[in-house]
Amino acid sequence: MSDEPKFFEDYEIGESFVTPGRTITETDVVTHAMHSGDWQPHHTDAEFCKTQPFKKPIAHGTLTFAFSVGLIFRAESANPNVMNYGYDKIRFPALVFPGDTIKVEVKITAKKDHHKIKTHGLLTQTETTVNQRGETVAFVEHILFVTRRTPLD
Amino acid sequence: MSDEPKFFEDYEIGESFVTPGRTITETDVVTHAMHSGDWQPHHTDAEFCKTQPFKKPIAHGTLTFAFSVGLIFRAESANPNVMNYGYDKIRFPALVFPGDTIKVEVKITAKKDHHKIKTHGLLTQTETTVNQRGETVAFVEHILFVTRRTPLD
Amino acid sequence: MSDEPKFFEDYEIGESFVTPGRTITETDVVTHAMHSGDWQPHHTDAEFCKTQPFKKPIAHGTLTFAFSVGLIFRAESANPNVMNYGYDKIRFPALVFPGDTIKVEVKITAKKDHHKIKTHGLLTQTETTVNQRGETVAFVEHILFVTRRTPLD
Amino acid sequence: MSDEPKFFEDYEIGESFVTPGRTITETDVVTHAMHSGDWQPHHTDAEFCKTQPFKKPIAHGTLTFAFSVGLIFRAESANPNVMNYGYDKIRFPALVFPGDTIKVEVKITAKKDHHKIKTHGLLTQTETTVNQRGETVAFVEHILFVTRRTPLD
Amino acid sequence: MSDEPKFFEDYEIGESFVTPGRTITETDVVTHAMHSGDWQPHHTDAEFCKTQPFKKPIAHGTLTFAFSVGLIFRAESANPNVMNYGYDKIRFPALVFPGDTIKVEVKITAKKDHHKIKTHGLLTQTETTVNQRGETVAFVEHILFVTRRTPLD
Amino acid sequence: MSDEPKFFEDYEIGESFVTPGRTITETDVVTHAMHSGDWQPHHTDAEFCKTQPFKKPIAHGTLTFAFSVGLIFRAESANPNVMNYGYDKIRFPALVFPGDTIKVEVKITAKKDHHKIKTHGLLTQTETTVNQRGETVAFVEHILFVTRRTPLD
Repeated sequence: MSDEPKFFEDYEIGESFVTPGRTITETDVVTHAMHSGDWQPHHTDAEFCKTQPFKKPIAHGTLTFAFSVGLIFRAESANPNVMNYGYDKIRFPALVFPGDTIKVEVKITAKKDHHKIKTHGLLTQTETTVNQRGETVAFVEHILFVTRRTPLD
Repeated sequence: MSDEPKFFEDYEIGESFVTPGRTITETDVVTHAMHSGDWQPHHTDAEFCKTQPFKKPIAHGTLTFAFSVGLIFRAESANPNVMNYGYDKIRFPALVFPGDTIKVEVKITAKKDHHKIKTHGLLTQTETTVNQRGETVAFVEHILFVTRRTPLD
Repeated sequence: MSDEPKFFEDYEIGESFVTPGRTITETDVVTHAMHSGDWQPHHTDAEFCKTQPFKKPIAHGTLTFAFSVGLIFRAESANPNVMNYGYDKIRFPALVFPGDTIKVEVKITAKKDHHKIKTHGLLTQTETTVNQRGETVAFVEHILFVTRRTPLD
Repeated sequence: MSDEPKFFEDYEIGESFVTPGRTITETDVVTHAMHSGDWQPHHTDAEFCKTQPFKKPIAHGTLTFAFSVGLIFRAESANPNVMNYGYDKIRFPALVFPGDTIKVEVKITAKKDHHKIKTHGLLTQTETTVNQRGETVAFVEHILFVTRRTPLD
Repeated sequence: MSDEPKFFEDYEIGESFVTPGRTITETDVVTHAMHSGDWQPHHTDAEFCKTQPFKKPIAHGTLTFAFSVGLIFRAESANPNVMNYGYDKIRFPALVFPGDTIKVEVKITAKKDHHKIKTHGLLTQTETTVNQRGETVAFVEHILFVTRRTPLD
Repeated sequence: MSDEPKFFEDYEIGESFVTPGRTITETDVVTHAMHSGDWQPHHTDAEFCKTQPFKKPIAHGTLTFAFSVGLIFRAESANPNVMNYGYDKIRFPALVFPGDTIKVEVKITAKKDHHKIKTHGLLTQTETTVNQRGETVAFVEHILFVTRRTPLD
């Protein structure tokens, strides 16, 4: 908390941390369906789910994704120098069910200059969300747009 | 509604549609911060925002993204043959503020076989979220995993 | 609070009371759209509303109705002898906008025996929801199914 | 989606459709109590419910009603020509418990002229909400106020 | 309801009442974590809880406290003469788990003049929240600031 | 993050920190009324508020209190050694309105042994919630029950 916010130059490839955990509940899945308006029967119709291999409602990919972002927020000091640039790849290799507890393994995997803007750099942050059995349930390549201490010239 | 669900073979490159609109409200931003646990000051601290170029709280990228998925759900007949495979690129070219109304322009831009699984194919769906002034606020390459009517052999 | 719950015999035609008020907010309309899944553009698309005579999003009829039930609950001692039987007429004579404050005028207007069940009677309760200008925004004939102190024979 | 919105003249008596299903959860009942302010012990006090024939908390009638409206919204193309006029009868013949999955059978059962307004007509839509065992849990006569393609003279 | 609101002079030491009950659900705990932003692992990480003596997520103290205030609100006629002055002691002698049903025993235990303000008096209200087994889960000394019918001179 | 959790012995009187800020919105006040069930007209009836000195709806004390706890959670590394023991004094010296931004100044002001339990100690943490003008809106003496590295004998 007492630290000053990091700049682009302060991040190193290979740096990593793990977030706290969060248990996904039925409440979360229902709230996410309501909030997003995504009522796919995979998430909200238990009778439909009984006819599917997964047998019961599963969490939305966008839920796992948004919660992972929230967990990362909790694990880091809020840094006003960082803005969200985008994502280059998102995959959901395993399903998330209510009762599962997820956490995110975060690692800096690349640093790049922006092709035009000299005051910021691009950071690739690999975010691997795992459940309580260590299975990867989401994999994300997150691109961050970070203020440089010293602009390029 | 009376139509039977589409299979992989039924989608054609270039097919497109536009979703209904949804107005983003302060309620949505606050609910999204609570739900995701992402309290970045850009979204939840009006005093911090006054010191920034954008002046007032902005919507989360994950909000715009999840709402876009919800709007697409509303515009299509729910199709049990379609599962979410992942995303290959997500960008947020312009900010979303409470009061903005977004809709999504959806277009099939590629079809591919899966390298192993014969019963499904991969569909690339470009999802461009625009605001009431026609500005693009989110751009997504969405990969769908769709059941084939006739498996490959 | 210290009173014992009323039985069917205790209600008199003409009895009436007025509930406390509740201000309808944008939050309520957004929450109701999410919760019910009713995203009609009249309630959730500000750009569409600008093209309509009412100019801005309006509350759902089911919102006004459910909130009126809630206000009546607050105004009465909770009575375990009363169950909801149904409604015979619901009308929405004027629109409700965020910022309006509603309250409900409640009046017992009829008492009837049930044609088969001797242990309960049917009460008609007229529920008139008015806004801060005294305009009626909802009118309901509510039928209550109330335990008798003494069953009919 | 690509269809133009239906006018009053386009609806035919006997037309019908069935909505998708939605599983009612504990989350829904708690959210509805909070949102409406209706905390009747039948819905929110498990100890009280143990003393009653139904043994555990039941969903509010206004919940089933509002969710049915939401499910109908999902099943139809949003039609800006349709406004809600009111309801002529609502009954709840069986209880809804968390875990039940409901869907709505919708049928046009009457068409009437409005006694004064020439630009719209009145449509009676019977909405029968059934659970996963096919039992009717709500029955509604819904009156819709629909723009005519050609006003009466 | 028909009563006029009580003034400071109308309250007597020893007066007491018991509120209705409310069952605490998983939904309530998740909603409270989201709403307050308090994601302590005791409340939201089921895997962490398995390593603790209490084994599963517990409700927040601030949840029990806020819900007790809400239950007291339900049990009393809303009284515009009463404002919240503060609390002198809050303790949580036993844990609250989802599934527990709480109610509050409320008792006036002291009346004091305010040292400066003549138009109001200070009321101490002891609020003891108990679960379905009669165990005290919260104990509060609540100070109310109540309008006098006749100001002191 | 990489730090190991603090024990009772590690806290020093005079230690302090300030939390991030959070803007209180209309959404927060409405959500809190719904969640807690506290619908006092001071918070939820805009017409009533117009007749009062404060003119418009104000936030609940329990909202400010719960949000302050959430802000403190965000500012500290989550510490599994700390449990909530209770509060010795809570006051609300100024009103909170939607639009205000609060943060909390936290200071350790006392350390005490528990009279019976040797494995934990009692920490008094003064929590002063201030608005964007630096006015104190809540003042709390929070008692924490903290595991000792070395139990007393």
